Amino acid sequence: MKIDLNSDMGESFGAYRIGDDRAMLEIVTSANIACGFHGGDPLVMHETVATAKAKGIAIGAHPSFLDLWGFGRRPILGDTPEEVGRFVLYQVGALQGIAAALGHPVRHVKLHGSLANMAQMDDSLADGIARAIRSLDRDLILVAMPGLATERAGQRAGLRVACEIYADRAYGEDGNLAPRKAPGAVIHDAGDAVARVLRMLDEQAIRTQSGRKLPARIDSVSVHSDTEGAVAMARAVRAALEQKGAEIAPFSSFLA
Amino acid sequence: MKIDLNSDMGESFGAYRIGDDRAMLEIVTSANIACGFHGGDPLVMHETVATAKAKGIAIGAHPSFLDLWGFGRRPILGDTPEEVGRFVLYQVGALQGIAAALGHPVRHVKLHGSLANMAQMDDSLADGIARAIRSLDRDLILVAMPGLATERAGQRAGLRVACEIYADRAYGEDGNLAPRKAPGAVIHDAGDAVARVLRMLDEQAIRTQSGRKLPARIDSVSVHSDTEGAVAMARAVRAALEQKGAEIAPFSSFLA
Amino acid sequence: MKIDLNSDMGESFGAYRIGDDRAMLEIVTSANIACGFHGGDPLVMHETVATAKAKGIAIGAHPSFLDLWGFGRRPILGDTPEEVGRFVLYQVGALQGIAAALGHPVRHVKLHGSLANMAQMDDSLADGIARAIRSLDRDLILVAMPGLATERAGQRAGLRVACEIYADRAYGEDGNLAPRKAPGAVIHDAGDAVARVLRMLDEQAIRTQSGRKLPARIDSVSVHSDTEGAVAMARAVRAALEQKGAEIAPFSSFLA
Amino acid sequence: MKIDLNSDMGESFGAYRIGDDRAMLEIVTSANIACGFHGGDPLVMHETVATAKAKGIAIGAHPSFLDLWGFGRRPILGDTPEEVGRFVLYQVGALQGIAAALGHPVRHVKLHGSLANMAQMDDSLADGIARAIRSLDRDLILVAMPGLATERAGQRAGLRVACEIYADRAYGEDGNLAPRKAPGAVIHDAGDAVARVLRMLDEQAIRTQSGRKLPARIDSVSVHSDTEGAVAMARAVRAALEQKGAEIAPFSSFLA
Repeated sequence: MKIDLNSDMGESFGAYRIGDDRAMLEIVTSANIACGFHGGDPLVMHETVATAKAKGIAIGAHPSFLDLWGFGRRPILGDTPEEVGRFVLYQVGALQGIAAALGHPVRHVKLHGSLANMAQMDDSLADGIARAIRSLDRDLILVAMPGLATERAGQRAGLRVACEIYADRAYGEDGNLAPRKAPGAVIHDAGDAVARVLRMLDEQAIRTQSGRKLPARIDSVSVHSDTEGAVAMARAVRAALEQKGAEIAPFSSFLA
Repeated sequence: MKIDLNSDMGESFGAYRIGDDRAMLEIVTSANIACGFHGGDPLVMHETVATAKAKGIAIGAHPSFLDLWGFGRRPILGDTPEEVGRFVLYQVGALQGIAAALGHPVRHVKLHGSLANMAQMDDSLADGIARAIRSLDRDLILVAMPGLATERAGQRAGLRVACEIYADRAYGEDGNLAPRKAPGAVIHDAGDAVARVLRMLDEQAIRTQSGRKLPARIDSVSVHSDTEGAVAMARAVRAALEQKGAEIAPFSSFLA
Repeated sequence: MKIDLNSDMGESFGAYRIGDDRAMLEIVTSANIACGFHGGDPLVMHETVATAKAKGIAIGAHPSFLDLWGFGRRPILGDTPEEVGRFVLYQVGALQGIAAALGHPVRHVKLHGSLANMAQMDDSLADGIARAIRSLDRDLILVAMPGLATERAGQRAGLRVACEIYADRAYGEDGNLAPRKAPGAVIHDAGDAVARVLRMLDEQAIRTQSGRKLPARIDSVSVHSDTEGAVAMARAVRAALEQKGAEIAPFSSFLA
Repeated sequence: MKIDLNSDMGESFGAYRIGDDRAMLEIVTSANIACGFHGGDPLVMHETVATAKAKGIAIGAHPSFLDLWGFGRRPILGDTPEEVGRFVLYQVGALQGIAAALGHPVRHVKLHGSLANMAQMDDSLADGIARAIRSLDRDLILVAMPGLATERAGQRAGLRVACEIYADRAYGEDGNLAPRKAPGAVIHDAGDAVARVLRMLDEQAIRTQSGRKLPARIDSVSVHSDTEGAVAMARAVRAALEQKGAEIAPFSSFLA
């Protein structure tokens, strides 16, 4: 079994540091790099791409609503799907520019925060984004949660789609993440997270909060670096996957 | 004689409109498109590229300091040449992303405002920028004022350089533009502008305010669209060049 | 009968000009000045306050979501009413700082764009904002649309409330403005606008699109300056009110 | 002897945390609160003012150039002294708005980063700022480095001026701080910092890097919270001052 581990990074901004990118680049196989709209700046992006290249980690763009203050977590309404597609193009292109200069190509796109959350539940919005990505570069892989609008839109647009599960988040009945502030929505214990990941992989399915089983293709496990505990959890997930005999590899190496 | 006409455009932002881009796209052969740092946004960039493509006008990136409030006209100190190179990469890449999606490639880079002004007088800064552009895409053309640091840096980096003169600005003794607020720095009369352009082309030289002649290769004439008068002046310059028998063509079509 | 005329202004930003503030300051009695979040900047605010003072026009703050790109027209979700109250405080305080330096006090607060629209329909959000304003300065007047949550919240908070009608917008069945993009939502004909204003004043009521009559106290008529037509419409409304014998005066002069 | 201890705080922004404000509010007597231009946001400002009030710490505004990316450390040229005065008004007013709502008045203004550095060396710029502050509120105290343009400008404007020394920075021959990146410019050892502070207080003078003695009134010692070491140094400075018998009190309580 081949499986990818992905994490968001490059979310620091100017004098502000967030996340332990160096630690995560020792753990994951795909790095989702912020593009300046919710976090990240050209210098942080450059440094993150350079480090990822030095460590041989595949990179992707992590576009967002333009909302540094809200770290891309606030829904912003009123843009059409085509308009959203255009500001996704801007961000992916910006990372591609920096990545091209460093000779480390951008392999995938993973939406951030409320943009991801909205697109997962809105086929029309997801289509606007997937079509934009496809028009930019048909080899880009779209990272999506299985069974939601982004997976469908990626397929409709003719993109390869990498389906991911979350190690540390509970799932609502619609297959989307339970809201961050809901009780039990965020898993803090590394052992629990490992057990959840292994069960989802065994079952090739997601389990909702009520226990319902939603069949799901799983190409990647998403882990975080926000806290010290998060880094330890990511290490534990990787160790458990390796012990189980999984080959940890970037999805860009095994997706058809 | 082949000569290009270039103009800055796509500098509107959200609800704010500036410049008459549609008029200018009937006059110029190369469009310098703002990339969101001093003006422009992803929607404006998309619309500008689409219109330029429809009219067959070559496009370039018009990067700047990050200063929407100051419209990129305020010098911002304290970044190293390498750091400036990185935020130029970000901007050029962002435009390339949008342009690739529309199938109309970015041909050149022209610096904006105080970034241009500083780079023209600072070989080290100009090198940082030229090397960044070269590392991104060796086919990009750097637009520069003849005889200044940006021209030299472009050549050192192995980029093609398009040398431009200004129709409506006086030149200081150093060959750079006289400061915008200095008396006589901005030419308002279309007839004067035309006469100046023709003389510079005849002499293949720039004339400084004191009358000194600085030999200069001239590939392009830069015109503006800020005011109604500016558009009329641009039309007059084009008409005079055509009458003189010049072939008006994008420098990307004739630069070796 | 005493009636106020109010208009949004000071919405220019840096090199970007929007609205004809000088014309409007000859027509209205209360000026709602943008505070830098959706438009306006410290220099524009200073100039607008200085001009309003010179012409004897009362001023108020026109706070918004932080969204220059969207001109404050995009709903941004995810902030609590208390958090929104805090960024309203920031904006009103910023204008008060500039106004105090110029010796022309801030008399009122009128919410802008999607923040206004959301608060009008959400008592909890409106309460968060009204309480913040009250805690800052109990003499500030809250401008509100009659019958909606902002009017109620202002009263609950113990603020004076100025109720306004729109000269150029149709009303939905809920008493809020019909969405800007809906057919018939924006009145373009000055004669129509005048007739609507006069009827609302005669009836002391709003008429919804279906013709339903919603009783309303009316202290002010809101007019715009976005277009040349808007300025002409504002002049026509003022002329009609004067001809009808109304005394055009700032609501800060007659509200109990 | 009465002496104040001041520190910059409230420089976090959205999801980004910087500095240990709670620790510093146990050490200092005057808190300089960022106003959103180089750091800080309305929610951070509100929380910082509320905490300072709860702990009985005097507060001031800490205005800056508009440069979140550069954390206000990059010189931005091209604004007139009057224009700079206006954006200082905006920032001080914004903090006053939040502080008024919380019932904890703003007592002083201390410039941040490159704005401070530029104003210290430029009488005209310093005058523009001091006059703006005076026009806003004549009771505001201007914090300045002794012997430099800001002290003189504050006096000329009729403001009370609090003169401060830096515990952890070396002084150049002009009496300004040695550039942060210069060798020896930043003192890292708490013992060294304490010794320097005590010597400056004993001598009522600053010592430049060459050992020259510049007589100086000293009302406050500035300490930092950027690093764990900085907090420990601040504690050591306070302990040394107390041991020496100084009364640690906000300058707003003892400046005539």
